[in-house]
Amino acid sequence: MAWRSHGDRQVDGLSGTTRRTKVEVVPETHAHRRAALGVLIREAGLDALLVTDLLNIRYLTGFTGSNAALLVHGAGDEHTVFCTDGRYATQSAVQVPDLERVLERASALALAARAGEQGQYGRSGFESQHVSVEMYDTLNAKFGGELTRTPGLVEQLRLVKDEQEIDALRQACSAADRALSDLIMHGGLHPGRTEQEVARDLENRMLDHGSEIRSFESIVAAGANSAIPHHRPTGAVLAKGDFVKLDFGATVDGYHSDMTRMVVLGEPADWQREIYDLVFRSQAAGVDAVLPGADVAAVDKASRDVIADAGHAEHFAHGLGHGVGLEVHEAPSLATTGVGTLSAGMAVTVEPGVYLAGRGGVRIEDTLVVRDGRPELLTLSTKELVVV
Amino acid sequence: MAWRSHGDRQVDGLSGTTRRTKVEVVPETHAHRRAALGVLIREAGLDALLVTDLLNIRYLTGFTGSNAALLVHGAGDEHTVFCTDGRYATQSAVQVPDLERVLERASALALAARAGEQGQYGRSGFESQHVSVEMYDTLNAKFGGELTRTPGLVEQLRLVKDEQEIDALRQACSAADRALSDLIMHGGLHPGRTEQEVARDLENRMLDHGSEIRSFESIVAAGANSAIPHHRPTGAVLAKGDFVKLDFGATVDGYHSDMTRMVVLGEPADWQREIYDLVFRSQAAGVDAVLPGADVAAVDKASRDVIADAGHAEHFAHGLGHGVGLEVHEAPSLATTGVGTLSAGMAVTVEPGVYLAGRGGVRIEDTLVVRDGRPELLTLSTKELVVV
Repeated sequence: MAWRSHGDRQVDGLSGTTRRTKVEVVPETHAHRRAALGVLIREAGLDALLVTDLLNIRYLTGFTGSNAALLVHGAGDEHTVFCTDGRYATQSAVQVPDLERVLERASALALAARAGEQGQYGRSGFESQHVSVEMYDTLNAKFGGELTRTPGLVEQLRLVKDEQEIDALRQACSAADRALSDLIMHGGLHPGRTEQEVARDLENRMLDHGSEIRSFESIVAAGANSAIPHHRPTGAVLAKGDFVKLDFGATVDGYHSDMTRMVVLGEPADWQREIYDLVFRSQAAGVDAVLPGADVAAVDKASRDVIADAGHAEHFAHGLGHGVGLEVHEAPSLATTGVGTLSAGMAVTVEPGVYLAGRGGVRIEDTLVVRDGRPELLTLSTKELVVV
Repeated sequence: MAWRSHGDRQVDGLSGTTRRTKVEVVPETHAHRRAALGVLIREAGLDALLVTDLLNIRYLTGFTGSNAALLVHGAGDEHTVFCTDGRYATQSAVQVPDLERVLERASALALAARAGEQGQYGRSGFESQHVSVEMYDTLNAKFGGELTRTPGLVEQLRLVKDEQEIDALRQACSAADRALSDLIMHGGLHPGRTEQEVARDLENRMLDHGSEIRSFESIVAAGANSAIPHHRPTGAVLAKGDFVKLDFGATVDGYHSDMTRMVVLGEPADWQREIYDLVFRSQAAGVDAVLPGADVAAVDKASRDVIADAGHAEHFAHGLGHGVGLEVHEAPSLATTGVGTLSAGMAVTVEPGVYLAGRGGVRIEDTLVVRDGRPELLTLSTKELVVV
């Protein structure tokens, strides 16, 4: 089956919402990101930053191979060097046409040695949160100059997404929305199917809608299994009356979506409606609190208080949410122990849950973007309790 | 569609080979692996090893979650502690029933702090090839005792696979074999299809045959694209006369398969037959050299010499092969720069290639296990040039 074009995006979520993608043409995105990093490099009093994390390199260059290093000079792209190995000669020429490229298997070492020889990268930073203790010694010996710890410089930029990133997130969320809609419309959720069958079906439907790969191992949890927050799909058979918890995501251009929805097979029991409504209200309160300037722990609290007030505090034992982007879990952390505030352009999940061991559990999760005013919801499937 | 039972394995590769899986029952596998590690720990003069790499933890415990740490005591399992977070409370109880378990979000720090308090882990090693410079400082501060660099202890054990691991590799290779067989039998390779369509089809068929997830992004390269060693599938349309290079793999129980096969659409031209036969002979020579005690660089040379003797040395610009296991690329490296010798039980690929830029290229790759005498071939699809 053909991969769908990303340009053609008529979205029919369960909510019946229909919208069109903004088509952003941002040819200079990677160069702009490197320029923003250049400012941070100069502010830190450095000449350059040796970037070794592959996701950070993808963010800064668009390169998607499995081996690369990047030495970003604070003075600009004319002094910046990219390195990968011979397997990616052609691919890197296409993806990274605008930087000097070196082909070496030991990519980080090659750039460190080169910097050591040329001397123009005298005081450079490295990604001390990614580089191992062993690798650091080797790099430092080759580098010659002063290799300084600078953890999280690129991650600081990645916290706030640009419109091209948000568009990729939107497309990933859309693939998940459409897959769920298809699954339900085509009778994919019924007594007698196993959790694993449903997970497989859902994941295939995401691929049908343009997902490159699943965002993470899908959670399909039926009946009492729905009380396990991170349940792995098993051969357990869906039965009438079951809660089915579906937590799944797609990826587009390397960006992840993350969504949880609940389905009941047949008429829901009173206790099911009760905890569903509770989590629904908690989730809405959390979404309402997602505003620029909001303290991340306060967002968690806004949602958590609704559940605590109903006497279920101990049944909600995980954080409220997390950032999403090139990683399915990244900063910021919306949790009681979280530190920091939200800014417009951050992409986060809001996913409270109530889990009653042995009976069943409910989680409702959206991926959304912090905007001035109300956040932009990227996962558009209905949050009504779906009864099939 | 139901996931196939791994027990039921009638294999019908393209070669027509039929065999049954050995059913190994090794309930104590993880405990045995920890005991073997205990020997290495004591030999290194240490009390314990703090294991933080998730694949190493999976190898030692069977745990498959996304957050864990393990403090393996040289004196045995009664002093060994496993840590994950609350999301995995139930899963870890099932997967790691035989070790003391602690639930903490910051798993490595929690075990370091605990060791610091208890004092019985005085001189401990850590995985300095995985632990970042930042993390090391934090761990060391909590730990109190002497945290010593011990890179690669678990990897040393992982080099030689036990029969349970080889069985998982065999199943992964079988899923890939069957998927390719299905693809060809059902007419999945024909002019007019795109590389992306073929890749998607192949990956779905691997899932049909029990693959948990694809082993890596499949390479489907048609026509001139086949000359690009690591080509990513595009919308390029397969045409009559094209070479199609298929490099793909499945995973079972976390173990990866890796195989490359070539197909020609219609009668092959003379130059196609010529380079195919050359690579075929080179690959056979490489396989013949895979013996216990063989120098890894000599194995590379045995295969490379065949290509060099035919005047194509410069058209084979990558290493001959690599280890496979919980990672798709792991030690040992079969390359001109490789160091070390093969041992029975190692699992490696042998994958020479000849790439003629602008025309087309050929790679033939098997996954096999070093055995006393001839290696055991795990990828059983025919290596005849398939003409469809």
